[in-house]
Amino acid sequence: MKIGVVGFGYWGPNLVRNFQATPSVEGVVCFDASEKRLATAKQKFPALETAKTYEELLGRKDVAAVAIATPVSTHYALAMQALKAGKHVLLEKPMTESAAHGKELLATAEQNKLILMVDHTFLYTGAVRKIKELVDDGRLGEIMYFDSVRVNLGLFQHDTNVVWDLAPHDLSIMDYIVGQEPLAVSAIGAKHFSDKEDIAYITVRYANQLLAHFHVNWMSPVKVRKILIGGSKLMVVYDDMEPSEKIRVYDKGVDIKERESIYKVLVQYRTGDMWAPKVDVNEALALMAADFVESIKTGRRPTADGRSGLKVVKILEAAQESLKQNSALIQIVP
Amino acid sequence: MKIGVVGFGYWGPNLVRNFQATPSVEGVVCFDASEKRLATAKQKFPALETAKTYEELLGRKDVAAVAIATPVSTHYALAMQALKAGKHVLLEKPMTESAAHGKELLATAEQNKLILMVDHTFLYTGAVRKIKELVDDGRLGEIMYFDSVRVNLGLFQHDTNVVWDLAPHDLSIMDYIVGQEPLAVSAIGAKHFSDKEDIAYITVRYANQLLAHFHVNWMSPVKVRKILIGGSKLMVVYDDMEPSEKIRVYDKGVDIKERESIYKVLVQYRTGDMWAPKVDVNEALALMAADFVESIKTGRRPTADGRSGLKVVKILEAAQESLKQNSALIQIVP
Amino acid sequence: MKIGVVGFGYWGPNLVRNFQATPSVEGVVCFDASEKRLATAKQKFPALETAKTYEELLGRKDVAAVAIATPVSTHYALAMQALKAGKHVLLEKPMTESAAHGKELLATAEQNKLILMVDHTFLYTGAVRKIKELVDDGRLGEIMYFDSVRVNLGLFQHDTNVVWDLAPHDLSIMDYIVGQEPLAVSAIGAKHFSDKEDIAYITVRYANQLLAHFHVNWMSPVKVRKILIGGSKLMVVYDDMEPSEKIRVYDKGVDIKERESIYKVLVQYRTGDMWAPKVDVNEALALMAADFVESIKTGRRPTADGRSGLKVVKILEAAQESLKQNSALIQIVP
Amino acid sequence: MKIGVVGFGYWGPNLVRNFQATPSVEGVVCFDASEKRLATAKQKFPALETAKTYEELLGRKDVAAVAIATPVSTHYALAMQALKAGKHVLLEKPMTESAAHGKELLATAEQNKLILMVDHTFLYTGAVRKIKELVDDGRLGEIMYFDSVRVNLGLFQHDTNVVWDLAPHDLSIMDYIVGQEPLAVSAIGAKHFSDKEDIAYITVRYANQLLAHFHVNWMSPVKVRKILIGGSKLMVVYDDMEPSEKIRVYDKGVDIKERESIYKVLVQYRTGDMWAPKVDVNEALALMAADFVESIKTGRRPTADGRSGLKVVKILEAAQESLKQNSALIQIVP
Repeated sequence: MKIGVVGFGYWGPNLVRNFQATPSVEGVVCFDASEKRLATAKQKFPALETAKTYEELLGRKDVAAVAIATPVSTHYALAMQALKAGKHVLLEKPMTESAAHGKELLATAEQNKLILMVDHTFLYTGAVRKIKELVDDGRLGEIMYFDSVRVNLGLFQHDTNVVWDLAPHDLSIMDYIVGQEPLAVSAIGAKHFSDKEDIAYITVRYANQLLAHFHVNWMSPVKVRKILIGGSKLMVVYDDMEPSEKIRVYDKGVDIKERESIYKVLVQYRTGDMWAPKVDVNEALALMAADFVESIKTGRRPTADGRSGLKVVKILEAAQESLKQNSALIQIVP
Repeated sequence: MKIGVVGFGYWGPNLVRNFQATPSVEGVVCFDASEKRLATAKQKFPALETAKTYEELLGRKDVAAVAIATPVSTHYALAMQALKAGKHVLLEKPMTESAAHGKELLATAEQNKLILMVDHTFLYTGAVRKIKELVDDGRLGEIMYFDSVRVNLGLFQHDTNVVWDLAPHDLSIMDYIVGQEPLAVSAIGAKHFSDKEDIAYITVRYANQLLAHFHVNWMSPVKVRKILIGGSKLMVVYDDMEPSEKIRVYDKGVDIKERESIYKVLVQYRTGDMWAPKVDVNEALALMAADFVESIKTGRRPTADGRSGLKVVKILEAAQESLKQNSALIQIVP
Repeated sequence: MKIGVVGFGYWGPNLVRNFQATPSVEGVVCFDASEKRLATAKQKFPALETAKTYEELLGRKDVAAVAIATPVSTHYALAMQALKAGKHVLLEKPMTESAAHGKELLATAEQNKLILMVDHTFLYTGAVRKIKELVDDGRLGEIMYFDSVRVNLGLFQHDTNVVWDLAPHDLSIMDYIVGQEPLAVSAIGAKHFSDKEDIAYITVRYANQLLAHFHVNWMSPVKVRKILIGGSKLMVVYDDMEPSEKIRVYDKGVDIKERESIYKVLVQYRTGDMWAPKVDVNEALALMAADFVESIKTGRRPTADGRSGLKVVKILEAAQESLKQNSALIQIVP
Repeated sequence: MKIGVVGFGYWGPNLVRNFQATPSVEGVVCFDASEKRLATAKQKFPALETAKTYEELLGRKDVAAVAIATPVSTHYALAMQALKAGKHVLLEKPMTESAAHGKELLATAEQNKLILMVDHTFLYTGAVRKIKELVDDGRLGEIMYFDSVRVNLGLFQHDTNVVWDLAPHDLSIMDYIVGQEPLAVSAIGAKHFSDKEDIAYITVRYANQLLAHFHVNWMSPVKVRKILIGGSKLMVVYDDMEPSEKIRVYDKGVDIKERESIYKVLVQYRTGDMWAPKVDVNEALALMAADFVESIKTGRRPTADGRSGLKVVKILEAAQESLKQNSALIQIVP
């Protein structure tokens, strides 16, 4: 099969490079509305085929799937057109501008038995997969909280705020790790330079006192990408700025010695070893591309499927609504 | 003058030691309801005088002031009794359990022309005073945000939640640095072991898009005490876990190149030197004690006066209300 | 038994406090040539007995042993006098000013069947004991190198150089961990302010290509206390400035895939997990005091016995000789 | 002018890329003895010209200079041939295998009025240039010591030891910063896997108690690239592993209060602010290429000229000799 890559801007070249190197992919065909960018693509990747129109790309029988790396405002229309043309679809994050659009795409993909996937690249990093493993095999225990900080100086986006720009990464990681349905979202932010928030705090409520919280900020003097996960058995610090030892697993926690009632509990702290497991350093994007292709071939569900993309959009939408409503708590409809 | 110290538990010994070493203080008289603790006090500080009852302490003419280091639930009654007996009062933080109580104490102190002060020790550290200096002389510019993280493993308190336990420190620092009237507060938390929150996030809204945010957590595997302050000219990271270089001042920020409208702004990032000013390492508590004594002698307002104590209690109370009301935004009445 | 503590200067108070708290010790008797210091001791430790002369102390039948915390130049004479009076002896580090003196003390102690011990406190820290454990149970493999850095700004000593001031700590740790006989020593240093070296590098050669190296420096802007230990199976970083996680154990190393000859070797790198074992945080000095007392009671050899003290002095003496001889390699006579 | 690049292995591609982007360079002509590598070069850089033999390259009139990125064992012959053909020469580090060879090249270049330069890339980094600036304008004061650590796990080289592999970087930085003539060198190392040292310590003595020391190690579990420079007025920590803030300048030091004699000195410590100056992040290699081209055009001396290359080789050679002579101190002949 061949893969179509739509959009050769910031991220497109990475998709081309990775799909060209993915087994079972016989070729990559690129489309970009800008002729100039298309020429650049051709020059950078001599083996790349190009299409002059989106319709030409979708019309090709040898192209089984398209990867869409265009601005989010165009995602829905381009993806719908592709699905209707019988193509599997990979969308850059966030999947769509609204949950309604996301649901339509999901329904269309299911009707046509096509793969709909979102490029939540972080789910394919060695670090996140290792944390997922600790959760799945029960070693972490029950998750009590998920605390994420993603801050740096810039980049201001003109067409979006800091929530839609930075939070999708961490929301997708959270959804993958936690594996539960979010109940409600609140968000608070501030705008110092334009009508878009440049700093925001988002809270996601789950059942059973599981609390997730996100600090996103374009105005921080220091770059921080850090996630704390508190499990009932182990606790994890995932620091993506560390060159190695990105994950530290702490054998720390609270044990309940005696619980007469909810009002009278005797707790005991447990502090044991810290452990930084070696994590796979293969490029996450290569694994993502392989997952997409393998899912197309076998019909299996990809790790970052449309449902996970939709869950992230639902939370973003609710956060946006909360920002508008003065940080009111917004319920998430399942 | 002599100073009465009420309560010889965790913090009392520090007060005794520091007041004994404060110039103009001729002696310290201690009262504790527990005879055993009073005996310990006497043994540890041979020069210490003791009183058998609170009334005896308040009845002494040579005792000009009392420092109250008892559980917060007793603060109001003990302080009111002392003020009515004509004594200046220093209260441990938080000042009272409710803003109403705080206001009454404030009014009584003012009526009787007595000093009412709160032991917000952090305001006397070299680090916080240096930041205050940067704000006051205009070098920091306008403050855009104040972001605080104070997390560690334990201590669970049985009679309070993590908000009342950890946040007073950072709220007092924020109030001192920011110097503005808070407008509204929201808080969200979770309870994993008892009916008290062990993790919480608090947001304080000010005018002009100034946003303050606090993460307090008894369940973190790592100990973090870090404050980020974003000014329009400089940005500060205050890391209290650093043995030296607690403050880092970044000549970083965003400059507006062109602003056609709020919808169209051209921003430019500025990144210059980082600078870690040397900060005074004198014991903060000694300076606090000296400020109390000097304020009594001269009638001047202490740095951490009753008003600043009340502001912190108002925010705590609003945060508590917000926790009850599912993180609703609670207005602060000036 | 009672313990005599000789010298109530910088370290003496710590010895008094710890021996008073050691089981089987019925009392501590202090002697200091300065009456003023003796008065201070009495005031600080009301239960402390004092002796007016050293002879008085040594003449007491209830005093089984003396701990000597005086300047190193007095160690030999005081210890010899005590041993001849039948007292067990604990000496502060370094044990003596010369190896010859050390040997004499050792011989005298052995003749009289008395314990001679040196206060190499670091050997009793949880961190060093954990590393020793890794070496002893074979997990670390063969030690290839031991690299130590102990640098900071100050303190300049007038009567000694940076080698005799700072290196004894690390030399004693090395000797304990490595457990082998040093073959030769070289040292190089520089003097910027007086006739004493303020910076120096010491190398200790062992058999089998085991190399140990020490950087000691009174002129560093940053405080570093870091030891790297390269084992054939595991490698360790011991950072004493870390508040917790002082030891990091790396499953890293070099495996020899093929070795045709010494000229043709195919090596392969191994990088696995990192692991920070929890270490005992009991006060090292308490364990040292207990070891001394237990050794007296049972006749067993203490961890930091006279032989280990002598080995450290031999290396210091050789390093000093190398400094004089322009960094020549000085053999260590076993 | 055009530039010839000789050798398209590990470093050659970087030279091609940078010389292609250097103003005044009209083209790059590459020669490599391997036809396969030459084909790769042509594919990667379509605008690149190639030469089939070294003689062909040297015979071209439009090629004014050659940059030689081949194994060090071939440097002397290739460079000598180029200089005799009237070409300016840039050599990768280390310049030659022996000081004798280096001197011959230097003499030949001077006779023929040709530029002979060594690619000591680090001298062109923003960090090193900033330190040089602090030294040159007198702010650092007199340099007392230069301490360098460059350690990591691997890469073992089969044809060289860790001294020749890692030390040239730091020796070139030291020579540039210090700007003095080294007097003597000693080195000590160990061989654990082959007949080449995999760990070594090198000391370089200068006049006036200036001491330089280098730790190079292929067997360290952690990667460290750190240089401490002790000046009489300021001290610098240069940590090349820091993503930003590579240089920290400490206003710390020792002031002499009173100096009766060398035996009696009263010193006082000074600790002031720390400052991390913003450093230029332009690619060092681009600046190096521009310096070479500019020197050719104007006849000025490049920053990393043949003399500095030769000084580094002299120290390496002396270190090698010291390793052979059991760490004896080897004089450097000026």
